Amino acid sequence: MMALMKKVLCFALGIGVFAFSCAAATNAWQHPCLMLTPSEVVTIRANLGRAPLFDAAFSEAKAQVEHALVAPAGVPVPLDASGVTAQRHEKNGSDLQTAGFLFQITGDKRYAEFVKDLLKRYADLYPKLGKHPASKGITPGRLFWQPLNECVWLSRVSQAYDCIYDSLTPAERSRFEQNIFRPMVKFITEDCQREFDKIHNHGTWAVTAVGMIGYAMGDETMVRQALYGSKMDGKSGYLRQLDELFSPDGYYCEGPYYARYALIPFFLFANVIQNNQPELKIFERRDALLHKALNALLQQTYNGAYFSINDAMKEMTLGNAGTVFALDHTYSQYERDPALLSVARLQDHVSLDASGLAVARALAATQQTPAFPFASIEFTDGPQGSGGGLGILRSGADVNDSLALMKYTSFGMDHGHYDKLALLYYDQGHEILPDYGSARFVNIEQKYGGRYLKENDTFARQTIAHNTVTVDEHSDYLGKFATANTKHSDRQFFDAHDPDFQIMSATDTTAVPGVAMQRTIAMIRDARLEHPVVVDVFRLTSEQPHRYDYPFYFQGQFMDVNLKLTAHVNERHPLGDHDGYQHLWVEAEGQAAGPVAFTWLSGGLYYTITTAADDSTKVLFTRIGANDPEFNLRNEPAFMLRQEGNSHVFATAIEPHGHWDGMRESTSGGEPNIRAVQVLASTADGTVVRITGKKKLEWTLMIANSTSTSAAKHSVNAGDETFTWEGNASLVKN
Amino acid sequence: MMALMKKVLCFALGIGVFAFSCAAATNAWQHPCLMLTPSEVVTIRANLGRAPLFDAAFSEAKAQVEHALVAPAGVPVPLDASGVTAQRHEKNGSDLQTAGFLFQITGDKRYAEFVKDLLKRYADLYPKLGKHPASKGITPGRLFWQPLNECVWLSRVSQAYDCIYDSLTPAERSRFEQNIFRPMVKFITEDCQREFDKIHNHGTWAVTAVGMIGYAMGDETMVRQALYGSKMDGKSGYLRQLDELFSPDGYYCEGPYYARYALIPFFLFANVIQNNQPELKIFERRDALLHKALNALLQQTYNGAYFSINDAMKEMTLGNAGTVFALDHTYSQYERDPALLSVARLQDHVSLDASGLAVARALAATQQTPAFPFASIEFTDGPQGSGGGLGILRSGADVNDSLALMKYTSFGMDHGHYDKLALLYYDQGHEILPDYGSARFVNIEQKYGGRYLKENDTFARQTIAHNTVTVDEHSDYLGKFATANTKHSDRQFFDAHDPDFQIMSATDTTAVPGVAMQRTIAMIRDARLEHPVVVDVFRLTSEQPHRYDYPFYFQGQFMDVNLKLTAHVNERHPLGDHDGYQHLWVEAEGQAAGPVAFTWLSGGLYYTITTAADDSTKVLFTRIGANDPEFNLRNEPAFMLRQEGNSHVFATAIEPHGHWDGMRESTSGGEPNIRAVQVLASTADGTVVRITGKKKLEWTLMIANSTSTSAAKHSVNAGDETFTWEGNASLVKN
Repeated sequence: MMALMKKVLCFALGIGVFAFSCAAATNAWQHPCLMLTPSEVVTIRANLGRAPLFDAAFSEAKAQVEHALVAPAGVPVPLDASGVTAQRHEKNGSDLQTAGFLFQITGDKRYAEFVKDLLKRYADLYPKLGKHPASKGITPGRLFWQPLNECVWLSRVSQAYDCIYDSLTPAERSRFEQNIFRPMVKFITEDCQREFDKIHNHGTWAVTAVGMIGYAMGDETMVRQALYGSKMDGKSGYLRQLDELFSPDGYYCEGPYYARYALIPFFLFANVIQNNQPELKIFERRDALLHKALNALLQQTYNGAYFSINDAMKEMTLGNAGTVFALDHTYSQYERDPALLSVARLQDHVSLDASGLAVARALAATQQTPAFPFASIEFTDGPQGSGGGLGILRSGADVNDSLALMKYTSFGMDHGHYDKLALLYYDQGHEILPDYGSARFVNIEQKYGGRYLKENDTFARQTIAHNTVTVDEHSDYLGKFATANTKHSDRQFFDAHDPDFQIMSATDTTAVPGVAMQRTIAMIRDARLEHPVVVDVFRLTSEQPHRYDYPFYFQGQFMDVNLKLTAHVNERHPLGDHDGYQHLWVEAEGQAAGPVAFTWLSGGLYYTITTAADDSTKVLFTRIGANDPEFNLRNEPAFMLRQEGNSHVFATAIEPHGHWDGMRESTSGGEPNIRAVQVLASTADGTVVRITGKKKLEWTLMIANSTSTSAAKHSVNAGDETFTWEGNASLVKN
Repeated sequence: MMALMKKVLCFALGIGVFAFSCAAATNAWQHPCLMLTPSEVVTIRANLGRAPLFDAAFSEAKAQVEHALVAPAGVPVPLDASGVTAQRHEKNGSDLQTAGFLFQITGDKRYAEFVKDLLKRYADLYPKLGKHPASKGITPGRLFWQPLNECVWLSRVSQAYDCIYDSLTPAERSRFEQNIFRPMVKFITEDCQREFDKIHNHGTWAVTAVGMIGYAMGDETMVRQALYGSKMDGKSGYLRQLDELFSPDGYYCEGPYYARYALIPFFLFANVIQNNQPELKIFERRDALLHKALNALLQQTYNGAYFSINDAMKEMTLGNAGTVFALDHTYSQYERDPALLSVARLQDHVSLDASGLAVARALAATQQTPAFPFASIEFTDGPQGSGGGLGILRSGADVNDSLALMKYTSFGMDHGHYDKLALLYYDQGHEILPDYGSARFVNIEQKYGGRYLKENDTFARQTIAHNTVTVDEHSDYLGKFATANTKHSDRQFFDAHDPDFQIMSATDTTAVPGVAMQRTIAMIRDARLEHPVVVDVFRLTSEQPHRYDYPFYFQGQFMDVNLKLTAHVNERHPLGDHDGYQHLWVEAEGQAAGPVAFTWLSGGLYYTITTAADDSTKVLFTRIGANDPEFNLRNEPAFMLRQEGNSHVFATAIEPHGHWDGMRESTSGGEPNIRAVQVLASTADGTVVRITGKKKLEWTLMIANSTSTSAAKHSVNAGDETFTWEGNASLVKN
């Protein structure tokens, strides 16, 4: 049967015309040829019962399909975005893929019959479908409200078709291809051509779906369109996506939350290409880019959660199926890095394929796996690495160690937020100074069908929703996507070689015309302090007067602030009426008289923000939740400084201190050690900040404001004193 | 040495005068005689290295004292309530106790010297102390801000003294007794006589401290005062405390949070009495009351956390030292119940004494211990069990099973809250409809020195802060402690024999004169529903018109409500100006037109409250946090019904449904199954409620409003229909 099919295919396609066909390696044009090869089928069959995590995935798959076999599947006319009909079609896609896989591994014909029967019903339904009734975007879907879901469905169902291909009659194949797959490809490549050719994760899914069904059907044009774009000119398509959506060190331009999703089609199609056109050496492309992409994704997590920059959902952790899939394929396609196994152990799942089996076998063979090397690291952004970046400082590799993150990337496309130079700070395994992430409840029908909520635009994406400076109550780029999407911040320097003094600096001149920003974040350890301290120096320079709002969203309970507050206890109003300000209740306000110290309690530690201030500094305490009639937002608090002036330097120490154990009713060190932060001077050449505290602690932090080589000398006068140093930054501890 | 001391003591005390002295069992008037006996010392020495949990406690103790040996202890003049000096004296008390223990076990004289040196310094300090400068209460402390802490200190230090007694010269003993112990006892029994004789946990600590040092010094009067009160007439003292603070089934009158604290002195002194006057058979008193008390304490937990009724702190879990101590002594003093071992395994700690050793040895000897039988159970309150009670319905014994709790106890003394008939509901291992607990940050200096905050009185204790009905915006008993403390609700019935229909009912006629309340809470399982449903029927009857506010504080995110809300999006005001209402922001309000359904998301499940309503029912959404200028409160939301009228029945179903998994982006069942709740009739004889929903679900719940025997027949007319049933309640499922 297999041999016969091979002949038929070769005939149908025409030898020589189809470059990757019969002339290629042994497996080509046998089926299955997508996510399973005949030799992988043999390996998997031989190893059932030998690798517990793979066996678990296999059992789950069997349970899923056996359940589907007895509960007759509906193939309803699509009605809703995330309701019953959408869930049904998604489930059918998953059931079909899994049943196809099981047919190959077990040879049980019931599974093939299930796939065939369901495909017949789709062959009846699909030609009748017009525009999906719940479509909202500019490109309506057909089977689902958006074409993206249709592409995901096709990538799954193409695998099912591939797996049962040899068991179908030519007439059955013809019917499925003519009624489902070809019209669906036509819809994706023609009706949705803009999306298909877009350098974007939706485009990656589209090319992957088309390429996969192309390989399965042996359709050269589809495969070439998938690889090289709808016009097959290389200006779009999978290879271009791989070249443009990642920086040279593997940072994905939308950030980690969407990376874990985008990596699915990238690894999926790479695996399919490898199985069919190994001569393309897809896993070696761009110096093994996909390997770097997976490593970058893992580095962009804290205690298993992705950094919540841009449109992230906080519930998403690295146990998700996309990261499992990408990790398993990275493990098996590259050098089988044993450190990946320790992440796989945490995931406690493997993918249902030969790569998942490889990981499961390795885990079964060893108890001890080296820890994944979470580290301080900088990722550049942009295809050439020149589009800014993301700086990560860690005090250690443990899940409870501190992490300070600065975002100086490009915008991040449709899911980007207007928060140039934002700070996120994690400690004790959770967020301490959080990023809001996105305002959305994925797939929850009551919340606008699970789509992004309007508060995502009106609040979560706005600059004031983030731990960075908002100028004149307007978001970066005045909230204009078209401008923002072409700009980026710039890295200044990143130096994590000294574990006691790690520092990074970035600038932005694009977000607010006429205002130059430089933010420098250091993580400093001192033998006199139990915990590492984050020092944040945010310098703004302008010829014109501005209002600078500098918020810190904090997780935990207010403990104390060293100034008199006027609290709005009986009547409460929003802080403003646009750019996100309309969503912030003003809870209390006050005027500084010197350095401000605000202490809160979070988990088992106290945290104090000590920040340079004087009597021109206004202090605000706000809470998210105004103008939110549908209760779509989380009501989280912020501490904010407001400063008016042309140029200004905010300088802040964030100090964890003491301990609190509610069960033992024990506490200590509730007072901060750091007592004052002062900006001694700030010139074009450099900024000098002094931090003083108990135990005679006196740190002088000197930061170069001009781009400098490591040998460049800097000199800044502050009153009678002159501070000199070499290179980007210097710290003197007394 | 031991024999000599025995003689000296017998001589000093006068044989025959002191009933429990030399005539008593072997160990009497040897030292140590408090929490260690000579034979226990032998046992402990013989078992070191054999029971890991005990070894861990022993190692921790050694590390603690070795650290104290090298870091010279201060004995500062007391200044603060929970700051440096208070923490120092607390730590000294703990170090002394531990060093004494270690001296006995190891024989290492450095430990005895440490105790002696520190006692010398206290002998210098104590006579100089007057009123503590940070005292706030009516009875100022001396070494600490409140006498309670002084009693705890004495109970610890008496053990240290007992352990090194034999190594001291008579002159040293005399000095310590004259300068520290006798004046401290005098202070406690005379200056603080009111507290010493009060039937209250502070009193228990006071009598325990005095009794322990009395036994250690061989002072009969002190011991008799401890046992029988300052006047030694039996109207107060330890035995009276034991008789009056617990109900016959072991419920402690202040609730579980204070029970775990009060049980420390109860078990401590019981153990000391048992070692010195075994003829008192203290562990057998009141039908083994202390055994019941520990079991009741464990039953009053959910997933390890104590029910947060009254002045509870939510961080306190059953791993705390008090519960460890009480559990270990219950295990060893009673029948060595193996189910206690499974709790001990969770605690992962044992007490540093012979009982802790017994538990640790048992755990080391077995891997399998039977689970503690968490169950639906009712506890009566009051010394005779006639002071109301606490009803607990569980859907199972697992940590994730549902639990509904109704509080119909007596007031609970100083730490009681004004919340007659309050409901608490737990599911998925955490609170879903929480009780606020207390407004306090224990031991945190910035928060009023760690004492109860003023918002504890103005909000947390008020009726409106709880899931029960507030009448006319006034708290129960008009918030008057003197009245409240003498009253209690009454149990009506409790029946958990049918796991598919568990039900409890209680009444109150004392909280609001002229308003009779009956609340009935059922937990119902139905094969058509995946989760058990809580049904709540709250009946209020009055001759006069009233305003009834019926709130549900909920944990989670608002999803949907089936009526049009007017949200206060730009300006927000408190709901009222007294009795806790001043702390509630009104976020939104609306008018019902029929049954109201409110859905929120919490953890992995949706919850819907469906409640009978009509166009006379007002709906409010509130959030805690108004009039809180120092940010002392947690900003938690509530859903509230407001009804005006003479009599009214609130009838509500609380249904968990569907699932949500953010990591998998999967959800289902977001719509509730229950669609309507109606009160069909409510008469003096009974109330009939109908609950209808999907899958043709129709439940008719019939509740007897009069006290009835199980055979009593009830009949209620509702329109054309007549409902009849026998006994307290009946459920018809269609």
